[in-house]
Amino acid sequence: MIEMQVDVQEILREGAERTDHALERLLPPMTQVPVSIHGAMRHSVFAGGKRLRPMLAMEAARTMHGVHGNGAHGNAVYGGSGLPEGIEDLGAAIEMLHTYSLIHDDLPALDNDDLRRGKPTCHVAYGEAIAILAGDALQTLAYQTLAGLKCSSERAIRIVGLIAEATGTVEGMIGGQVLDLEGEHAKPTAESVLAIHRAKTGALIRVSIVTGGIYAGADAGDVRRLTEFGTKAGLAFQIVDDVLDMTQDSEHLGKTAGKDVASDKATWPAVFGIEASRRDANRLISEAFASLEPYGDAAEGLKAVARYLVERTH
Amino acid sequence: MIEMQVDVQEILREGAERTDHALERLLPPMTQVPVSIHGAMRHSVFAGGKRLRPMLAMEAARTMHGVHGNGAHGNAVYGGSGLPEGIEDLGAAIEMLHTYSLIHDDLPALDNDDLRRGKPTCHVAYGEAIAILAGDALQTLAYQTLAGLKCSSERAIRIVGLIAEATGTVEGMIGGQVLDLEGEHAKPTAESVLAIHRAKTGALIRVSIVTGGIYAGADAGDVRRLTEFGTKAGLAFQIVDDVLDMTQDSEHLGKTAGKDVASDKATWPAVFGIEASRRDANRLISEAFASLEPYGDAAEGLKAVARYLVERTH
Repeated sequence: MIEMQVDVQEILREGAERTDHALERLLPPMTQVPVSIHGAMRHSVFAGGKRLRPMLAMEAARTMHGVHGNGAHGNAVYGGSGLPEGIEDLGAAIEMLHTYSLIHDDLPALDNDDLRRGKPTCHVAYGEAIAILAGDALQTLAYQTLAGLKCSSERAIRIVGLIAEATGTVEGMIGGQVLDLEGEHAKPTAESVLAIHRAKTGALIRVSIVTGGIYAGADAGDVRRLTEFGTKAGLAFQIVDDVLDMTQDSEHLGKTAGKDVASDKATWPAVFGIEASRRDANRLISEAFASLEPYGDAAEGLKAVARYLVERTH
Repeated sequence: MIEMQVDVQEILREGAERTDHALERLLPPMTQVPVSIHGAMRHSVFAGGKRLRPMLAMEAARTMHGVHGNGAHGNAVYGGSGLPEGIEDLGAAIEMLHTYSLIHDDLPALDNDDLRRGKPTCHVAYGEAIAILAGDALQTLAYQTLAGLKCSSERAIRIVGLIAEATGTVEGMIGGQVLDLEGEHAKPTAESVLAIHRAKTGALIRVSIVTGGIYAGADAGDVRRLTEFGTKAGLAFQIVDDVLDMTQDSEHLGKTAGKDVASDKATWPAVFGIEASRRDANRLISEAFASLEPYGDAAEGLKAVARYLVERTH
């Protein structure tokens, strides 16, 4: 196997830059009437998110491009090319959905958070009414963006359906938020934490990877492998997030640290302890990598981002 | 011109029944985990809505079916057939979007309404957190439903894009809600009321008609005519709604009557008076009907529903 030159910092930088450019183009300008809602949408979308989900979509697409596309296997060029045209719009749509869920999750009636990524949350900056509508509008704009994807209509409509399912109430993002809310006054169990993590954050991470693949021509076997990979990587990501919440201070996190523990939230370390959680995250990533075995070097970018997800410190 | 037997009561009954059956099938059952959110979604979706938007989509489709489909021109059969297969799912998706906007509009941070269609609003029955998420989930489920439409992928993705645009922030539903909120402390003007009505309720009504047509094979000329018709019918509908709010009692309306006046909301009669508003609604419907002239009898069902919209008393 040829040792690939995968520069994860370059992948992260390029992924964030492409996503930011797409978001800048797709979000209505601050001057567009009614200005308050567009200001609120931009406030939260450009609050310093790492664009991890768009990057996963891009790297999944790059993997498929390496396998099925015009780049020969093992000859994919990382950082700058090897991506299908317009993939950044899919990433931007996914980032809008992620941001809408954060805005609504932070509302007084839900988690009541004042700080997110070191900045005032949307309702603190713009008031509750506009924050509710800004979240709504980001979901709407995500689907408007998906409807304009530069792939075939067949692929685009399939992507719409998969993303809606993954962000819905039945084992999707909203369902996870509800389980999390309902479990607030009960002691978390292995079963409840797994169900919440899979739905609340896992489903969107998984579908980012799967739809990135579909955009770039994934066949049924690819979808199965990317689903396996995404399910495990998504869970590993959330476990690391839980551990960071317990072990880092607020300045590092850009949000109120230790809040999960204080509110008896369902987290992995609350059930299994910190050391076991770290081991679980690493084991899940190894298992996730095994699903990508058939792709050889074409999956190096995707694996590099996943590795970064579990090794990050904030 | 042959006098058609258009039974508007039969159209309304059939349209509501088909929509209700589709919604019953598409919404997760009450027993689906997490049960609270599914209960809340069903509470608001099955709160006695008249299903006017789905009916407009269906009748627009029936018109196109009469013009382009297997039913010969002037030979469309009303009440029971003449509708393309699966059109009720488009109507159900639109009704989900309408319902989500009502749930969020009723929230304490927005209009703070306790009563809607004679029933407790979603946040009164289920609490604010679940009401916010139930609104979110209805928007999500609408797009999941559109992704499964039984038309070509080209038509389905076009419908997704048009509906997202019509419910978005730029001259769409959310934009109208924001203008309405922002204008609460200013005296309404002809210009501001027109902008709010066109965006807040007009855009979704217009797009119901246009996408119903596209589902059934509307060409570019049809889309132009249906857009003209829908724009005028949508405005007429909202003017009548404003007049009813001023002239009916709460029992008739199923919501707190006179609230628009009390809160100095931007309404047509507040600017033009009740008599002029009634005249404007009738004039708009006549103009709307003129756009459908080329369709002759094939548009009788669509016109009957539009006529009902301005002649209704609740």
